Amino acid sequence: MLSEKINLKNKYSKFSDYWSPKIIEEMNDYQFKLVKIKGDFVWHSHNNTDETFIVIEGEMTLKFRSREVNLSKGEIFVVEKGIEHKPYSKNECKILIIEPKGIINTGESVSELTVSEDNWI
Amino acid sequence: MLSEKINLKNKYSKFSDYWSPKIIEEMNDYQFKLVKIKGDFVWHSHNNTDETFIVIEGEMTLKFRSREVNLSKGEIFVVEKGIEHKPYSKNECKILIIEPKGIINTGESVSELTVSEDNWI
Repeated sequence: MLSEKINLKNKYSKFSDYWSPKIIEEMNDYQFKLVKIKGDFVWHSHNNTDETFIVIEGEMTLKFRSREVNLSKGEIFVVEKGIEHKPYSKNECKILIIEPKGIINTGESVSELTVSEDNWI
Repeated sequence: MLSEKINLKNKYSKFSDYWSPKIIEEMNDYQFKLVKIKGDFVWHSHNNTDETFIVIEGEMTLKFRSREVNLSKGEIFVVEKGIEHKPYSKNECKILIIEPKGIINTGESVSELTVSEDNWI
């Protein structure tokens, strides 16, 4: 069976909650997740995998213990495994995250923002 | 050492050849590759991995033996492993490909379009 194409704009129109990753597709044992973000996330790290952020619309900041990286539409950042980071966005920002299946959004730091089940849209 | 952010527009400005993947970043054992495409590629498949296409600018077609899929800016398609496909674009189209390290662009079909070394930009 052949895959179907995914239209990002169409998928973003299907949800409005923040910090709640929606899975749109899989490639081997990796997943593509859309997230709308606004405000502060929690400090966390993923000890066994890198994590890719792609900004689709808007602007965001990746805070690290040593510095901050501002990302705009059309920019990509790969957070290496084990590196503590805290995403932040003043205004709503739409991002695409790529990471292996089974990764929890808050990494090792369980909080009220933790989403542990797979939510497909 | 912390990664650097990647700006897609900036990276695309650094090359002009068609069908010649340029690696911009890695995530675990996967690579992100920019490609400018125009015209017909060759029929090929990758027997051991899926391959992700994301259209960054323009329009392209993924031809399969059973059908064709037209992709525009902001659309994603994952070609499952083993599926024969032939990318095509009437006009220049800018795409982002995500696949494991060590994958050759023409898969099992060696031709004059085969690029077997890693080209970073």
